[in-house]
Amino acid sequence: MKALVYDGPGEIEWREHPDPKLQEDTDIILKVTSTTICGTDTHIIKGGVPTAPHGTVLGHEGLGIVKEIGAAINNVQVGDRVLATCVSACGHCRFCKSRQYGQCLNGGWVLGHTVDGLQAEYGRIPFAQNSVYKIPDELSDEQVIFLTDVLATGYEVGVLLGKVSPGDTIVIVGAGPVGLSTLLTSKLFSPANIVVVDPVENRREVALQMGATHATTPEEVHAVVADLTEGLGADVTIEAAGFPAPFELAVDLVRPGGHIANIGVHEEPATLHLETLWAKQVTLTTGIPSALTVPALMKAIAAGTFDPTALVTHRLPLHEMEKGYDIFRNAAETKALKVVLSQ
Amino acid sequence: MKALVYDGPGEIEWREHPDPKLQEDTDIILKVTSTTICGTDTHIIKGGVPTAPHGTVLGHEGLGIVKEIGAAINNVQVGDRVLATCVSACGHCRFCKSRQYGQCLNGGWVLGHTVDGLQAEYGRIPFAQNSVYKIPDELSDEQVIFLTDVLATGYEVGVLLGKVSPGDTIVIVGAGPVGLSTLLTSKLFSPANIVVVDPVENRREVALQMGATHATTPEEVHAVVADLTEGLGADVTIEAAGFPAPFELAVDLVRPGGHIANIGVHEEPATLHLETLWAKQVTLTTGIPSALTVPALMKAIAAGTFDPTALVTHRLPLHEMEKGYDIFRNAAETKALKVVLSQ
Amino acid sequence: MKALVYDGPGEIEWREHPDPKLQEDTDIILKVTSTTICGTDTHIIKGGVPTAPHGTVLGHEGLGIVKEIGAAINNVQVGDRVLATCVSACGHCRFCKSRQYGQCLNGGWVLGHTVDGLQAEYGRIPFAQNSVYKIPDELSDEQVIFLTDVLATGYEVGVLLGKVSPGDTIVIVGAGPVGLSTLLTSKLFSPANIVVVDPVENRREVALQMGATHATTPEEVHAVVADLTEGLGADVTIEAAGFPAPFELAVDLVRPGGHIANIGVHEEPATLHLETLWAKQVTLTTGIPSALTVPALMKAIAAGTFDPTALVTHRLPLHEMEKGYDIFRNAAETKALKVVLSQ
Amino acid sequence: MKALVYDGPGEIEWREHPDPKLQEDTDIILKVTSTTICGTDTHIIKGGVPTAPHGTVLGHEGLGIVKEIGAAINNVQVGDRVLATCVSACGHCRFCKSRQYGQCLNGGWVLGHTVDGLQAEYGRIPFAQNSVYKIPDELSDEQVIFLTDVLATGYEVGVLLGKVSPGDTIVIVGAGPVGLSTLLTSKLFSPANIVVVDPVENRREVALQMGATHATTPEEVHAVVADLTEGLGADVTIEAAGFPAPFELAVDLVRPGGHIANIGVHEEPATLHLETLWAKQVTLTTGIPSALTVPALMKAIAAGTFDPTALVTHRLPLHEMEKGYDIFRNAAETKALKVVLSQ
Repeated sequence: MKALVYDGPGEIEWREHPDPKLQEDTDIILKVTSTTICGTDTHIIKGGVPTAPHGTVLGHEGLGIVKEIGAAINNVQVGDRVLATCVSACGHCRFCKSRQYGQCLNGGWVLGHTVDGLQAEYGRIPFAQNSVYKIPDELSDEQVIFLTDVLATGYEVGVLLGKVSPGDTIVIVGAGPVGLSTLLTSKLFSPANIVVVDPVENRREVALQMGATHATTPEEVHAVVADLTEGLGADVTIEAAGFPAPFELAVDLVRPGGHIANIGVHEEPATLHLETLWAKQVTLTTGIPSALTVPALMKAIAAGTFDPTALVTHRLPLHEMEKGYDIFRNAAETKALKVVLSQ
Repeated sequence: MKALVYDGPGEIEWREHPDPKLQEDTDIILKVTSTTICGTDTHIIKGGVPTAPHGTVLGHEGLGIVKEIGAAINNVQVGDRVLATCVSACGHCRFCKSRQYGQCLNGGWVLGHTVDGLQAEYGRIPFAQNSVYKIPDELSDEQVIFLTDVLATGYEVGVLLGKVSPGDTIVIVGAGPVGLSTLLTSKLFSPANIVVVDPVENRREVALQMGATHATTPEEVHAVVADLTEGLGADVTIEAAGFPAPFELAVDLVRPGGHIANIGVHEEPATLHLETLWAKQVTLTTGIPSALTVPALMKAIAAGTFDPTALVTHRLPLHEMEKGYDIFRNAAETKALKVVLSQ
Repeated sequence: MKALVYDGPGEIEWREHPDPKLQEDTDIILKVTSTTICGTDTHIIKGGVPTAPHGTVLGHEGLGIVKEIGAAINNVQVGDRVLATCVSACGHCRFCKSRQYGQCLNGGWVLGHTVDGLQAEYGRIPFAQNSVYKIPDELSDEQVIFLTDVLATGYEVGVLLGKVSPGDTIVIVGAGPVGLSTLLTSKLFSPANIVVVDPVENRREVALQMGATHATTPEEVHAVVADLTEGLGADVTIEAAGFPAPFELAVDLVRPGGHIANIGVHEEPATLHLETLWAKQVTLTTGIPSALTVPALMKAIAAGTFDPTALVTHRLPLHEMEKGYDIFRNAAETKALKVVLSQ
Repeated sequence: MKALVYDGPGEIEWREHPDPKLQEDTDIILKVTSTTICGTDTHIIKGGVPTAPHGTVLGHEGLGIVKEIGAAINNVQVGDRVLATCVSACGHCRFCKSRQYGQCLNGGWVLGHTVDGLQAEYGRIPFAQNSVYKIPDELSDEQVIFLTDVLATGYEVGVLLGKVSPGDTIVIVGAGPVGLSTLLTSKLFSPANIVVVDPVENRREVALQMGATHATTPEEVHAVVADLTEGLGADVTIEAAGFPAPFELAVDLVRPGGHIANIGVHEEPATLHLETLWAKQVTLTTGIPSALTVPALMKAIAAGTFDPTALVTHRLPLHEMEKGYDIFRNAAETKALKVVLSQ
């Protein structure tokens, strides 16, 4: 088959690669019909994820048709249309028993990281019983493809861990795909004000189109939030950028008793201003998704509560994967959010 | 002043009554601009609430302009436009400290019950610091009048205690004002399916207009719910009728692991089928509101998340209170939901 | 091998029975070293559980040495000393994903019910990855045998679902093995008063020996609770008897805002006094255990927080199983709580 | 009366000071029978709390006999023996309504900070209805004096916000009075292992005497925790020192999915290693107490669950307050934990 292979820092190629085979009774083989590119993929390519071996097929976001199933599989059948979540969960370790699939001791984020991923014509999904969901007929590939990672991440790590509640004023720092996914899914809890912060004008515009009540810059956000909250600060702030400055901004904008949810993938430490925080009764969370909310999010999409296809800026055939990467990595010019590749 | 006075079972009259006076430093006096009638008022009139003394002014739902404030009051000023919640909370007893204002040892539901209420030109509000909220200028009387009781009840006792969550299938048994309030406020948590059950066709139609995804009869609801839930039952069922049969229906319709929230005011016991429930891991809750969610609900109304004015079927001048009761008590013919009386 | 076989209402026999064999890759075969008898076993024998086929080996509480493991098993090895929980959880269905193993769509309570159980020399455990736990060397068989059911039930269905909290006054209705297990495990949350109610004097004495602060009769408990709670009622009441009268007593004794946790196995409905409960803001729960707390309870036993061996009243060799049943079913005379049978 | 007055950085004096008077209807005047000294008092004296005016009577921990009550007070009477909590809560603002009394918009920590405190013969307590609790006759002054601050802080900010649960391995960094209070109150939730970290040998010994299962140094704690947790890290880590290094140690020692509760009063920022934390799904909390748990803690002390008098290292008459400060500030030599001053 053809696949996008990582050959070490700076090196990827769409080329022939061995077909995936069932290795465990809990595996399935998927014919990939849609996949997409994540910031984490570019992070691997930059050499920032040394646990990724050279020669690995990238991609942890994908869906398609079940081609083969292991002996233990009973939740899907050959021919079913399914999506695979970015984390592979054994269902048996102490973290899976605690619903923290992202911390699974036998799996976790392995797809397109330590084992071959889904930017390929076919892919093997480990632990498919806790990692694969059937797609209802009424939902298109594009409507559900982002449930594999970015929507589940925004919802579980941002909205749920941040405890967004009806009537809240929330701040989302960063209007890339993860921040926008947080914006879309936050609507499930009816916050009164959704303030999105991004230095890039185009992304602020997109945020407003997707339902932000306010979109502003890092310089002006303090005044906006103060105005909405009688000077107290936001109920929930969500970091969706992955750098120290936006993290510190998120911490600074929260009210006493509020929540700060970090979603961003960070490469360096941040400064935590405990000299003001210690008495403020804040809660700060980090994490990666378990994707256990996929069934609920599917229902919300089917009901029209939010429309994730708004995140698709570019559509390409699967074999143009390298071009997809060019578009995605050049977002400043291409204004790419998510690039969907299909066959 | 003029007021609607309860004179014992079957007897009410709109007549002259002494003006309310400040009795405690924590009281305020309100000039009532809007009030409404509740099923509980008719329950008193039927003689079903023997704790209500003869000679009491009825009404626990009202808003208006602050005319006088006690020495301890600092949350509102004379001239402010405010609403008074149906429960009066001292803020100091063990239940108030636990946010269970409905159980307040010094107050609770006293307005229009054990002390004079708000179906009058003026009213005294005890414990105003924890029982009165300023109304934002952008919201009309009709937009907020139902926050005094029925919306807070539907939201806190039905939606919150029932733990309605995004993607859920919920069932609301009873499409009177409380059931419809539950329907309206359930949308704050984005359930996928809202099934409303009522034997009266007109009420089912109203429920559909207000956003129910399904409206059906007690006879047909089992099939509807089974179809939506792979036969498992609803995630949350909410009793909003106050009789044994709808309560038992609500219990019967819930899935294993689900929640049953009772809102209805009951006069007699029901049968609880422990022989099937004991292993089913259900949670059943009862209660009355604390109205602590009024600020959040105001923000949701201002944001357009739901429109409570849809509950208003009749509007009358305040002095036609007796006519208002006639309309409300004859709902089968008048199709009355909520009658708003204003001056 | 030898096993205790259910031959239809009133009929059991300790006799030769085919050895268990691995049927699925997720099974293990256990050499049973200790087992015990549960009230549910006697319920089956009375004919009260028609889902139990004639010819079934009874027993859902057992531990021993792993003799064989299926191909998918990686949490235990042949030769390990392990306990099997009373519920068998697939780990993959919607209820297992919600940590509600008792509701597992593929398993649940099947052992000694719909498949052969553990009152035998050998037993097959389905879904062993989510249903079997290694026993630390420092803990004896007797210290952990009740974790298989009765302690997990008392703790999860009584203490945790009832939300027992430090300083609480709790009432446990029924001082049989389940009620006493609830008593023992409630200490993990340091309630201030543990009131046990039972009509049988001997059981009240045992309760006091095990750490109840008060033991009283159904007739006198109202006065005891009123005295401890300024007349408000208990914070948590727990039904551990399985009949309408004790259930209604538990409901009657709870304070406003309190919790009622039903553990009892009921055969008939009870009356729920909604005419007083509707406004009282109570929470009522039912359920069976998931046994997910076994690791935490093992640590508490090892730390000496509570001593479950106090529940053992009789010890017999495994092959005297029929005699064990005689003792257990004649508890009024034998004062049996738990009978442990070992080989 | 006599009182300990703060006269600016480095300056305190026990001298004549005007008697306190009722200023609001919600005040009470207390004859102080016992008070104690807190690290925060020494922090003020060092000049580290510029919001404290010169001329203020210090002390936010005290109990005594009610001498006068304001017109609105109905929870205590003249002559009652009561304790005053370190935070004064109005009971009416949005934070009091959320049970976050430490964030009260009208009070909070004001005693001995912005208004005269309780290191004096008499003291005025604002907002007494939500800030004062009657002391049961069976409890001595010494048994309850630390509920005014340090025990409530350890319990609410450390144990409750950290979600200590039965069977947990917890780490407490810092064995001063707050750390030891956390240790004592953590027992209410029956953790299996309580690891206390302190560089000072004497404090480690005290921790072991008070029930720590392990006491170790910052250098050796990683090995101790790894050994107890299969290398995963502690379930809960609690910072009770107030400096960057112990905070960073607490963060470093937590397992994936675990909680870090900061109690320490910090004067400078710390480094947060988001490059490892982002994926680890940790929860970090800060805060000060509301003291809403005082009634539950009183019951636990009366029941003998823990003994707070173990914290008392020195007892002095009230008028030797200056000597008390000398002892407390020279803890390295005096081994002082808490100095209790009584009249």
